[in-house]
Amino acid sequence: MTTHDPSAPDVHEAAFNPAAPASPLERARSLLHLTRQAMAAPDLQGGLLPVMEALLSGTAAVGTAYFEASGDQALVYQVRAAAGEMPSTAGMAAIAAHGLPANVPLLRVLQEAPEALFYGDVHASPDTQGFVELGVASLAAAPVQDTQGELFGALLMHTFRPHAWTHDERQLFGMVADTVASLTCRLRAEEHMRAAQESSLRALGLALEARDGESLGHTDRVTALALKMAGRLAFTPQETCALRWGAYLHDIGKIAVPDAVLLKRGPLDADEWEVMKGHVVAGSSFATTLAFLPDASLAVIAQHHERWDGSGYPWGMSGDEISLGARIFALCDVYDALVSERPYKEAWRPEDALAEVQAQAGRQFDPALVPVFVTVVNEQEG
Amino acid sequence: MTTHDPSAPDVHEAAFNPAAPASPLERARSLLHLTRQAMAAPDLQGGLLPVMEALLSGTAAVGTAYFEASGDQALVYQVRAAAGEMPSTAGMAAIAAHGLPANVPLLRVLQEAPEALFYGDVHASPDTQGFVELGVASLAAAPVQDTQGELFGALLMHTFRPHAWTHDERQLFGMVADTVASLTCRLRAEEHMRAAQESSLRALGLALEARDGESLGHTDRVTALALKMAGRLAFTPQETCALRWGAYLHDIGKIAVPDAVLLKRGPLDADEWEVMKGHVVAGSSFATTLAFLPDASLAVIAQHHERWDGSGYPWGMSGDEISLGARIFALCDVYDALVSERPYKEAWRPEDALAEVQAQAGRQFDPALVPVFVTVVNEQEG
Repeated sequence: MTTHDPSAPDVHEAAFNPAAPASPLERARSLLHLTRQAMAAPDLQGGLLPVMEALLSGTAAVGTAYFEASGDQALVYQVRAAAGEMPSTAGMAAIAAHGLPANVPLLRVLQEAPEALFYGDVHASPDTQGFVELGVASLAAAPVQDTQGELFGALLMHTFRPHAWTHDERQLFGMVADTVASLTCRLRAEEHMRAAQESSLRALGLALEARDGESLGHTDRVTALALKMAGRLAFTPQETCALRWGAYLHDIGKIAVPDAVLLKRGPLDADEWEVMKGHVVAGSSFATTLAFLPDASLAVIAQHHERWDGSGYPWGMSGDEISLGARIFALCDVYDALVSERPYKEAWRPEDALAEVQAQAGRQFDPALVPVFVTVVNEQEG
Repeated sequence: MTTHDPSAPDVHEAAFNPAAPASPLERARSLLHLTRQAMAAPDLQGGLLPVMEALLSGTAAVGTAYFEASGDQALVYQVRAAAGEMPSTAGMAAIAAHGLPANVPLLRVLQEAPEALFYGDVHASPDTQGFVELGVASLAAAPVQDTQGELFGALLMHTFRPHAWTHDERQLFGMVADTVASLTCRLRAEEHMRAAQESSLRALGLALEARDGESLGHTDRVTALALKMAGRLAFTPQETCALRWGAYLHDIGKIAVPDAVLLKRGPLDADEWEVMKGHVVAGSSFATTLAFLPDASLAVIAQHHERWDGSGYPWGMSGDEISLGARIFALCDVYDALVSERPYKEAWRPEDALAEVQAQAGRQFDPALVPVFVTVVNEQEG
């Protein structure tokens, strides 16, 4: 997306060539290809940019942008994707930064519009009030509605000189607007599903906290720490997701530990300690029934009590044998236990807990990860 | 999908008119529209049939079918969608019923094919061995691959007379095959996500069984009974899903009930009974944090101990005030408790449990649902 000085000569319209050299079927095939790619895209920007570029090359428009209502109140429509030239006015800069207020006349008109609206000269209609000042001369605007017919987005395209939109341009804009609507509906449905999946897994982890009031908030706190570590270590989205799911579920095996052991006030005897340690194997076996869990999540659940020097449980793994996720998570889990109050101990001060973590570098913890963890905690506490 | 007698005159090719009356852009728009609809379709059949019909009207093909590998072994490709005329031969009937074996030459060739293959006369190529006997004269076949490039489906179209496939027909077939591939990939990804969501919710319900060995299998058994009731009562897929999720989570609040009460061998005293009854409110409040749960699922969790005559807990609701899902579920839950062994009782015989359920019609249970439940159980036991 580039910006345009309205006083400069407009070369785009001169360069516009509506007669594409390809055969009709080839042109259709290329449009279809773009649409299919857009519809299958994993995100909005990636899906929309190619069809928006095609829109610009097939019409006199010099720029196009897709705006979407943000937040539950939907008081503002933010730019979600844009291609071509935008006016280089202060008003346009403000819209790029803060969005288009939902009460501008154009958005109010679109709320009632069944399909795209075309304005050859924005001076001539009260609908497009405010667009002259932005530096736009002609405009096309299409409503993007959800399945209930509620407006949640708007596709706009514009020129810097007055322009009578042709039949073919209107057709093409309509097609692109329909593609935007279908894609956004699909992505919203997927997002809804992803959020549901995420909250189910978190709930599974939280179920444990319902039994054990002392650990209230532990799952969310260690997950937050683990995610900060993932950020520092430049994890991919997939790696981050696997670590997050492992964090949610790390203690799920404690479901099988009886109250008499789990909630005991005071030190555990040898037998009780064996029962408590059993939560790792129980949790691993339970988590294996969730066939979709990545191996990296299972490793966090199975190995989060292993120690760098091999003195952990249940497998006695050491060093790099322990998965990276489990080494990261062990730091987060132990630190949170130290700074939390427990039946048998006071809450430690963060600086004391960090000193203990540092003292355990190379013994309990991966020495390469300890400094990263210290930075993450200092940023959080500071 | 109709069948065709190879000895009858073939009128389709005579009626075929490759010059569509619409303008190229209108034709493109209609194709785009179909593709977008296909890509956004909730299921394979609904998405594919319109584009398959468009394929038939834009080519000389008289019939088309999409085959997909079924099962992990993928020894057979089953018909998933078909349009137009199929040969009325015994071989074709066998394929429609049992699928196309993965080792027929055509599927083996497609495994290595980067794009669609065209056969003007199936006599002329070893690739299409077996298709003459099916009553097919010319054939087009496109591979449908997953993101790793593995073949998992094949789109075929055929004529009953030899036919040289034109450039435009090849283009159109390629477009439709690409749409099939994109749509099936999206639907498989969604199916994967749905299965993950489903198993997370079931795991949440099962977590409880890990604490209480006596109730092992209870969640799955009551869910199965509830789903049979939903089938009998012609529930929509959405209603069925809400009931299933409610069944998974109905006792989730028992997570908060201490071992001393939950696992007590012998009758509960008044205070313990109050703690046990608290699981309904605890479960409702826990389930409310799962923002995506439908109201009908929440109602099952909140109301599954209500009774038709108003004597249940915790709200003392009665009759139709109690949600249909909760009234159905109460039947399944109580029946399963009766036929299961518990610390304080033997397992009842199914016929005795059913007699008790019938005796409670209009008292504990909705009298209109009791006969439906009896039928469902008798079918299951018989």
